[in-house]
Amino acid sequence: MLGEEGLPSVMTVRGQKVHDVRYGENPHQAGAFYRIAGTTPYGLGAAEVLQGKELSFNNYLDLETVLAGVREFTAPTAYIVKHTSPCGVASHAVLAQAYSDALECDPLSAFGGIVGFNREVDSDTAQALLDGMDKYGFLECVLAPSFSTEAREKLAVKKNLRLVAVSDLCALDTYDYKRVTGGFIAQQLDLLTDPEELTVVTKAQPTPHQLEELKFAWRVCKTTKSNAIVYAKGTMTVGIGGGLYSRVDANMIAARKAGDRAQGAVLASDAFFPQPDNIDVAHAAGVVAVIQPGGSIKDQEVIEKCDALGIAMVVTGVRHFKH
Amino acid sequence: MLGEEGLPSVMTVRGQKVHDVRYGENPHQAGAFYRIAGTTPYGLGAAEVLQGKELSFNNYLDLETVLAGVREFTAPTAYIVKHTSPCGVASHAVLAQAYSDALECDPLSAFGGIVGFNREVDSDTAQALLDGMDKYGFLECVLAPSFSTEAREKLAVKKNLRLVAVSDLCALDTYDYKRVTGGFIAQQLDLLTDPEELTVVTKAQPTPHQLEELKFAWRVCKTTKSNAIVYAKGTMTVGIGGGLYSRVDANMIAARKAGDRAQGAVLASDAFFPQPDNIDVAHAAGVVAVIQPGGSIKDQEVIEKCDALGIAMVVTGVRHFKH
Repeated sequence: MLGEEGLPSVMTVRGQKVHDVRYGENPHQAGAFYRIAGTTPYGLGAAEVLQGKELSFNNYLDLETVLAGVREFTAPTAYIVKHTSPCGVASHAVLAQAYSDALECDPLSAFGGIVGFNREVDSDTAQALLDGMDKYGFLECVLAPSFSTEAREKLAVKKNLRLVAVSDLCALDTYDYKRVTGGFIAQQLDLLTDPEELTVVTKAQPTPHQLEELKFAWRVCKTTKSNAIVYAKGTMTVGIGGGLYSRVDANMIAARKAGDRAQGAVLASDAFFPQPDNIDVAHAAGVVAVIQPGGSIKDQEVIEKCDALGIAMVVTGVRHFKH
Repeated sequence: MLGEEGLPSVMTVRGQKVHDVRYGENPHQAGAFYRIAGTTPYGLGAAEVLQGKELSFNNYLDLETVLAGVREFTAPTAYIVKHTSPCGVASHAVLAQAYSDALECDPLSAFGGIVGFNREVDSDTAQALLDGMDKYGFLECVLAPSFSTEAREKLAVKKNLRLVAVSDLCALDTYDYKRVTGGFIAQQLDLLTDPEELTVVTKAQPTPHQLEELKFAWRVCKTTKSNAIVYAKGTMTVGIGGGLYSRVDANMIAARKAGDRAQGAVLASDAFFPQPDNIDVAHAAGVVAVIQPGGSIKDQEVIEKCDALGIAMVVTGVRHFKH
């Protein structure tokens, strides 16, 4: 896209302050939200807060994860975030059901979370949000392209719940960048959603249904913080481990969250397995099929371990680190 | 510092590309490192790579965590990072010992890690790095203000290991900022290192030695990703859980890493405990004293739980989220 010369030799990010926030990541830090100056507002720069308190610094951070998350899905999808990583994602023809499914993944983590939808929030979905709050505790924000009048009326009882409308979920920045002291690192966005080619590397072959489950889990994995492991069944996550130091830790967290629901589930890993120990953890939990990029020095050992345990493994050739 | 008006109404970040990197966070993304234009190079913009391959996008990201980490300590300190959160930190009058202590915290996660020091790397520390690699596997980068000639000669055998000198560890940016689609959020840096006031809220009082341990653990917690739980003994971490969805998950990870070493250890939490369940996890692991910000609706329940279990708890009144 950018040719051999890579990124531009000078990059300028110019922000126009939209408002101060109450404080930064912590109460002793001042903070503010800036929109990219000289552009038509887009993304969170075009967000409308329909209800609730002003957005906080940490709300913006989690809303960005939610926005990047729901963007990945074409089917109606609910995406719940806590501390910048998803803790429950589900797709379902009925949006309210997608939310209930997503919430059941890890209700403990969803407490105080941020929820995103890639469809208008309708009355039933609003009810599902209220029911979820009654059962598991409050939410900080709900982001969606729009909210129906009935949904807004229902959700008005939760005065502190912020309803955030971002009409165009798919507007993108040109580059991603992250501050480091004395400069920043910039990169192209990670726009590869579906793996171009899936290669089955094990004796066991995934069934067509498992293949769809694997693709769903892979999509969630892409927007989960590294090291990321996602357990899924159908089009709902049942356990997610994200932001972990070691892949086997992420796997153990995901397995623990999944519990009995890991029986017959599939697993996605955002990067290769450095050791076959991850397959042992997955197998002990009940996982029957795995999707991962491949490319480890120990790929052959990992494949042999799968073959010994009757697990089907699909390799994408694409990695999705996200820090 | 900034007065009532908070952050400036316009903020411009202008970067001069120093070099492209081989790729961004993932191989299908182009990436580059930019130094802040029009300034004397500082921080990672002033880093000298003395040995090894060019720095990658992810190296820069982890080096920033290391730089922010070692900056917090006045005693000689080693700080090991994996996936932007520390997995082992220790202070010791002898720098080589600080490294060995830090490495023992979680050698599994330290594999492929980034190491930072706040003192010149001497010959003995170079040897400790080599010994550690023999035992637990390779490292990506070592950052320090300088490396002695002997240390450089020793480390030259590891051709791929990047030695990164940043002579002034304490140079700071004016603001921190993070991209969100269509804009960015900016904030003052989190410069509060030591809590101004420590209040013991339990019947059990920490001993003077435990108080020093608690302060060390708190300092590590400040630079660990949220939710962060740090187990420490003396001036070395024995278990760290960072970047987790829920605080009790972070606690379980830290406890599992610590194993038997949690007996008699202290615990730091970057934010308040939403539930007393965290105290149960800590107590079961062997923790005897806790430091945390306080401020939860359930503070009283948390204090009562500590009193019932004979745990000393110190409250800082300051939170250290870091996302």
